[in-house]
Amino acid sequence: MSAASPRPEAPPTPVPAFAEVFAQVRPHMAALDRFLREQIAAFEPEIRTMADYCIDTSGKRIRPALVFLSGWRGVDPPAPELVRAAAVVELVHLATLVHDDIMDEADVRRSRRTAARVYGASAAVLIGDALFAHALHLAAQFPTTEVCLAVSESTRRVCAGETVQTLRRGATDVARADYDRIIDLKTAELFRVSCQLGSRLAGYQAGFVEAAATFGRHLGIAYQIYDDLADFYGQEQRIGKTLGTDLASGKITLPLFALLDCLPEAERAELIGEIRGERPPQLALHLRQMHVHGVFRTVAEAIDAELARAAVALAPWPFQPPTPLLLQLCEGLRGQVRSLQPAPAAS
Amino acid sequence: MSAASPRPEAPPTPVPAFAEVFAQVRPHMAALDRFLREQIAAFEPEIRTMADYCIDTSGKRIRPALVFLSGWRGVDPPAPELVRAAAVVELVHLATLVHDDIMDEADVRRSRRTAARVYGASAAVLIGDALFAHALHLAAQFPTTEVCLAVSESTRRVCAGETVQTLRRGATDVARADYDRIIDLKTAELFRVSCQLGSRLAGYQAGFVEAAATFGRHLGIAYQIYDDLADFYGQEQRIGKTLGTDLASGKITLPLFALLDCLPEAERAELIGEIRGERPPQLALHLRQMHVHGVFRTVAEAIDAELARAAVALAPWPFQPPTPLLLQLCEGLRGQVRSLQPAPAAS
Repeated sequence: MSAASPRPEAPPTPVPAFAEVFAQVRPHMAALDRFLREQIAAFEPEIRTMADYCIDTSGKRIRPALVFLSGWRGVDPPAPELVRAAAVVELVHLATLVHDDIMDEADVRRSRRTAARVYGASAAVLIGDALFAHALHLAAQFPTTEVCLAVSESTRRVCAGETVQTLRRGATDVARADYDRIIDLKTAELFRVSCQLGSRLAGYQAGFVEAAATFGRHLGIAYQIYDDLADFYGQEQRIGKTLGTDLASGKITLPLFALLDCLPEAERAELIGEIRGERPPQLALHLRQMHVHGVFRTVAEAIDAELARAAVALAPWPFQPPTPLLLQLCEGLRGQVRSLQPAPAAS
Repeated sequence: MSAASPRPEAPPTPVPAFAEVFAQVRPHMAALDRFLREQIAAFEPEIRTMADYCIDTSGKRIRPALVFLSGWRGVDPPAPELVRAAAVVELVHLATLVHDDIMDEADVRRSRRTAARVYGASAAVLIGDALFAHALHLAAQFPTTEVCLAVSESTRRVCAGETVQTLRRGATDVARADYDRIIDLKTAELFRVSCQLGSRLAGYQAGFVEAAATFGRHLGIAYQIYDDLADFYGQEQRIGKTLGTDLASGKITLPLFALLDCLPEAERAELIGEIRGERPPQLALHLRQMHVHGVFRTVAEAIDAELARAAVALAPWPFQPPTPLLLQLCEGLRGQVRSLQPAPAAS
């Protein structure tokens, strides 16, 4: 095995990514940005600066994009209901990020200091609450309770996923099934509801709404596994956060499950000690071990399998306008996974 | 001045209290308790124990009682809509308590260890979020979006009040107007919406709903001032939490405003240093100073003034069934204030 760095430079030519698909809904995303900025005025004067800081524009805004893409009807200007629904899911997501960063004691998110670091943990708890409350307030402004029902249920499930993950931190008896359930709740749920609301509010028939929701769920699972892979294989500058935070905080994600499955007993025991927080994490060592045991490929295959499930959900609806756009997202995510791939070792 | 303890034993005969009025809605409160217990099943299995711990029965449940009293129509069995609305306001309140206790680093609340102490701050952030989300989910189960709109708006205002309070901690340039605004947001808002929802869901006319809401707001302000007074004059065993926590956490409440107004310069500077956290708080000293300067009476008069405003709101509606019950609450709170009153010093 080569002793060369397992984390090479990014390839010079861009691979397909989410961003290309998102370019299709650029006017929608601009309308969302204006709408979110207008919401700042709804907060009490003292917390406007904090709310403004949290509603930053540097995020990827995947969930709002899913609302717009699932609700795609052609090149019409962005419909106000879709913009409002997109704002609701983004605000719920931002609130969970603000609360997450308190628990992770993270310093940096999206290349900026976290709200918890800037304003203190106490204020961050409350500003997250205010963002949640405002999201539900916007959800209550639809003519019926449908959006409110869906979003409040989703929010509870997202929180449950985060809670279960928190309770399992540092535990090494976590089963793969627990991991699957946690990412289904904490990530896939909001992807799912984004696709459901987008297609529903755009007036698509119930069968397609259900298919879009199922697509969203599997895309969300795939995305979270990609995110967990990037925590080992990403480049800090590119993903905008510190690498190795999952291991450092005792979270077992799919790359670690895959590595634990392959490691000889002594090395396995060492890694388990690190997950339990009994010894400092050795990120560089584990990247070399992952390289030896082909962990990247194992995880990439798991992502592929979820993306295949997402595509299957849409198979009966090839001629609905959102279908090709949503399928492009799968290609985009495959491209993002490839861009993390380490260079082959010169063995 | 006497050197005797300024905090005498509780008087042996009971004074009127909230509890007497609440006795009128005992079947309603029992129905609420059953309803809340049933909600536990809605949470993911891993967090049911935590949700159950937070939805404890030891609280005073003032806000739900306000829903039932404002929606009083006689001795009918509790209406399901009122029970659900009562659960919504109680869950929002419990969520804010769970988050509050993280920030206050409180050990004990209602004579039990706080959720943050039992489950850790991280889990407490999330369980609070899940309670919020579930409250809004219940609110979305009404036929229209009205309850969801009112409750999400209230929740945002409650969070804003808590945030402003947190930002002002340890600051000594806080004006009395800031204090008034903080308690209006963090406490009076949920009292207000409880009375509004109760009377509205019971089918009362718009004028009375508005009057009940105004009553609730002033009762809430009065109640928070009473609570702040109890933080100095209460008995730990009776109020179920550590005394002097406001001063220790740098919160200026009405008793401290009143004391700061009276103290000579040197003593004032000492107290300001304590609020800023520059020196340990001297609770016993300040109780003696409050005694000398008649702070109890000043604060009790402020409570009386708010209760008078509450009663004025209901004056045009003497024959509505809830009116006498709501007015009894004012008497109950006056009684609770009297029960805190220190014995006259043997000077």
